[in-house]
Amino acid sequence: MIETAMRQAVGVSADARGASSPNPPVGAVILDADGLVVGVGRTQPPGGPHAEVMALREAGDAALGGTAVVTLEPCNHTGRTGPCAHALIDAGVAAVHYGVADPNPSAAGGAQTLRAAGVEVSGGVLETEVRRGPLRGWLRRQESGRPYVTVKIAATVDGRIAAADGTSQWITGAAAREHAHAQRAAVDAIIVGTGTALADDPSLTARRADGSLYPHQPTRVVMGWRAVGATARLRDGTSPFVQVRSHDPHEVLAMLPDALAVIVEGGPAIVGAFLAADLADEVHAYLAPTILGHGAAAVTDTSVTTLAQAHRFRRESVTELADDLLVTLMRDQN
Amino acid sequence: MIETAMRQAVGVSADARGASSPNPPVGAVILDADGLVVGVGRTQPPGGPHAEVMALREAGDAALGGTAVVTLEPCNHTGRTGPCAHALIDAGVAAVHYGVADPNPSAAGGAQTLRAAGVEVSGGVLETEVRRGPLRGWLRRQESGRPYVTVKIAATVDGRIAAADGTSQWITGAAAREHAHAQRAAVDAIIVGTGTALADDPSLTARRADGSLYPHQPTRVVMGWRAVGATARLRDGTSPFVQVRSHDPHEVLAMLPDALAVIVEGGPAIVGAFLAADLADEVHAYLAPTILGHGAAAVTDTSVTTLAQAHRFRRESVTELADDLLVTLMRDQN
Repeated sequence: MIETAMRQAVGVSADARGASSPNPPVGAVILDADGLVVGVGRTQPPGGPHAEVMALREAGDAALGGTAVVTLEPCNHTGRTGPCAHALIDAGVAAVHYGVADPNPSAAGGAQTLRAAGVEVSGGVLETEVRRGPLRGWLRRQESGRPYVTVKIAATVDGRIAAADGTSQWITGAAAREHAHAQRAAVDAIIVGTGTALADDPSLTARRADGSLYPHQPTRVVMGWRAVGATARLRDGTSPFVQVRSHDPHEVLAMLPDALAVIVEGGPAIVGAFLAADLADEVHAYLAPTILGHGAAAVTDTSVTTLAQAHRFRRESVTELADDLLVTLMRDQN
Repeated sequence: MIETAMRQAVGVSADARGASSPNPPVGAVILDADGLVVGVGRTQPPGGPHAEVMALREAGDAALGGTAVVTLEPCNHTGRTGPCAHALIDAGVAAVHYGVADPNPSAAGGAQTLRAAGVEVSGGVLETEVRRGPLRGWLRRQESGRPYVTVKIAATVDGRIAAADGTSQWITGAAAREHAHAQRAAVDAIIVGTGTALADDPSLTARRADGSLYPHQPTRVVMGWRAVGATARLRDGTSPFVQVRSHDPHEVLAMLPDALAVIVEGGPAIVGAFLAADLADEVHAYLAPTILGHGAAAVTDTSVTTLAQAHRFRRESVTELADDLLVTLMRDQN
């Protein structure tokens, strides 16, 4: 019952990704004394209620003597909102089960506060699953002081992203593009190089199949020195536009102190720079059932000179997206 | 019942691939009058019995009044073996169901002969499945006068087959290599360029995981002008070695008039030449969860200058082979 509720909490928290930053995208489920789900909630945008409070509001009096299942240890500190630990105590919840302990010293202690109030508390519920879920960006930020980095490539099965004459629309199909747009809607920033910005004039917004914008839009980041023209789509005001005059991925990430997750969308040298700097937590390779045999390669990293230096990942999943495949690779220790 | 038997017939015929050439790798199943499987057989190497005869031998008297299910229309001609149609009639089989009609005028007419003898006959059973099965090489030979061509690449997810210093062992793992060796054991020839032959000194034999040789070994074909040294592994006598002094894939295939299926294993320019000549029926892309960003690309085909000229395929399947993926692509009309 607790594990089922935890999976539901992870699921509902997915929609908080990006929107909740810099706060963690937490999910919470309240079960009444009989174990029935009476409230679910996710972290609202900064200044809004946390997941526990959203779930408690839905539960109302049914939370009394019930159980709260939360992806992250309830916070103990008063920021822009009151501490969630107190809200749970005030609602009369009898038990709290969470997935991951809060590593942040200023917010931690929620479990202790709850126990001191007589609430039954357990942590580590489905911890591995929870860590790999929507919280992974925030955990990466806590543990490494930088956002979780996904590098995206969309290529032929022989690793090309454009033909010799530069034509590249479209190598992958509509289903793959839709999937990639949904990923954008869940992160804080999209990073490209000036080459991509100037060659493709991309908007880098997160759009649905019908062209409408997702509610959350990532910041659009261009790295490099060449100027991006005033009429570029990147500067249309849909979401913030930032240019970082550097080719160093560390400097670019340092400009985004509130970002929990970013996607690096190219070109090949930018993707290669993030790989060379050992900053790629995840790779999304969208592969078309097509062979070009000529034209730009998806990744350029001249720091790799011998096979032993190859960037090795663990295959996380393979997804069929109409004609294309999405191969998701992850850093081995994730 | 007939379809189940046909799937079994297709299955047993897989082991005849390569070994039966230039005869088709046929599979046959005999059901007794109650519909029980009493005999299965596959085409033996040239000079040996065809599938129907092998299955009838196993069935013995139980074939009387029974049913024969065969992937290909039973032959009507006396070659090195007697016509299978007569063998079925002599055994007293009451019905014959086959998958694909024999397009070969000298062998066709088996169905007519059977009907004339009072046997119930039907064709086209699971025809699409049967055509895509072990018979596809022989059918390609009948229809196009050339073998069925599979091009194989073993690359990183960014399409590289070697690092900048030439190191390439091993990009894909043991499970992928084992799979590729089993594919070799099912074809008539492996084709590589002199570049691969000289750089890697490959044996191009079909070996099991324990190093032992499969019973059927493909002919080893090198295309190009540079001499292959007398001590090369290709010349160890395990199976025939042929060098074709040409870079034209059509000329190479013309040297193999008895081949029903071949695998092109590289290097990049050889694979590209078969693609450019529109000779690739199937692509086997073994992809490692690795990114190199530098080093040789899997395919080189400078005839492709714009995206509209890309070689497009239909994705047939995706197979997980330990850490690696095998993406199988097929010509759209297959």
